[in-house]
Amino acid sequence: MKIGILGTGVVSQTIAEKLVQLGHGVMIGTRDKQATLAKTGKDNFGRPTFSEWIKNNSKVQFEIYSEAASFGEFLVNATNGFGTMPALEAAGKRNLANKVMIDISNPLDFSKGMPPTLFISNTDSLGEQIQRTYPELKVVKALNTMNAYIMVNPALLPDDHNVFLNGNDVNAKNEVKMLLISFGWKEKNIIDMGDISTARGTEQILPIWVRLSGTLQTPIFNFKIVVGGK
Amino acid sequence: MKIGILGTGVVSQTIAEKLVQLGHGVMIGTRDKQATLAKTGKDNFGRPTFSEWIKNNSKVQFEIYSEAASFGEFLVNATNGFGTMPALEAAGKRNLANKVMIDISNPLDFSKGMPPTLFISNTDSLGEQIQRTYPELKVVKALNTMNAYIMVNPALLPDDHNVFLNGNDVNAKNEVKMLLISFGWKEKNIIDMGDISTARGTEQILPIWVRLSGTLQTPIFNFKIVVGGK
Repeated sequence: MKIGILGTGVVSQTIAEKLVQLGHGVMIGTRDKQATLAKTGKDNFGRPTFSEWIKNNSKVQFEIYSEAASFGEFLVNATNGFGTMPALEAAGKRNLANKVMIDISNPLDFSKGMPPTLFISNTDSLGEQIQRTYPELKVVKALNTMNAYIMVNPALLPDDHNVFLNGNDVNAKNEVKMLLISFGWKEKNIIDMGDISTARGTEQILPIWVRLSGTLQTPIFNFKIVVGGK
Repeated sequence: MKIGILGTGVVSQTIAEKLVQLGHGVMIGTRDKQATLAKTGKDNFGRPTFSEWIKNNSKVQFEIYSEAASFGEFLVNATNGFGTMPALEAAGKRNLANKVMIDISNPLDFSKGMPPTLFISNTDSLGEQIQRTYPELKVVKALNTMNAYIMVNPALLPDDHNVFLNGNDVNAKNEVKMLLISFGWKEKNIIDMGDISTARGTEQILPIWVRLSGTLQTPIFNFKIVVGGK
């Protein structure tokens, strides 16, 4: 499958590596290629710069947003929250229409320091905002509730744990489910929450995620829903 | 121990039953005793009316808020979110001072139908509001992230799962921890998140809780944090 990924950070890179491993064609999109390649300094995860990374991952194509969106039969939004709507605008409505997009973004606002707040929450969500703005795009919010390394390698954790799907289109959710299963997710651990408005819940789990990562002193954890006998 | 519980709903009743079972003296407080006793009709949980319940639980004393707060050496806030601040005002500042209070309330607003929204969230929490208003009260937010039956019987679920503590006072959190252990909680499953501002995270988990209870078609579930090897 040809997959376009919007965004160039750790989530984008981790997903891209996994997709290449699985044999997919992958193109990462950014706003300004030269600016992205010129970025210096390690990120918070101690990873190499993007320019080093892309050199070492030569099977991943790298273009501007509109190219990546046009290339992808299937899309992944791995931009940060504030970057999401501008990235989609740059991608172009025509390049988004009738495609399935996994939306991994979170409306986190770090501008006032730690802990972050949410710049959309409670009565709306970033997932809903995307779906409203691009009604022909099939948005499936998923994977936004965990660290990137767990997204593509659920066996990193010593027990079962869950990933949540939020989206209006049942077929789109099934496509995402199949992709997640190819990432190593067990079908029973994929919870379809319902329509895109359920993204309010998965996005509002971020504040406890952020505080837990401090308390546990690791980002390598996830939520498991333990259900009682019926 | 003499424990005062504010509120008369399913959470209050379930906690009261457990505390009596454990040998504590329990007084439930309400705004207006006659009004509470006059309530007819089952609640959403198919439980008896409060007047029937209190008749069958004769070891539980039943008085107005200020009496229950005065009686308790240790307090439990089991009012609903909108009822919390008025209940504490009625309880009286003097009756709250220097006491530990488990705050189980959630700022849920059902006034616009389902799903509920939060009437405080993101940049503040009900837990913080209580602590700010009553600085001499030692607020420990806990148990608000699960169904009442699980609060007092964690073994209801077939696997380990977690309860979160949010509060400024370390000794108060230890007292709450001891009480939770007496309820059947394993110490390793009690996560101290930090100061009361971490209540933003545990209160904002309610939107996903509500949607999950619909998806799973049961309220008998809880969150487990699965942590990777370090």
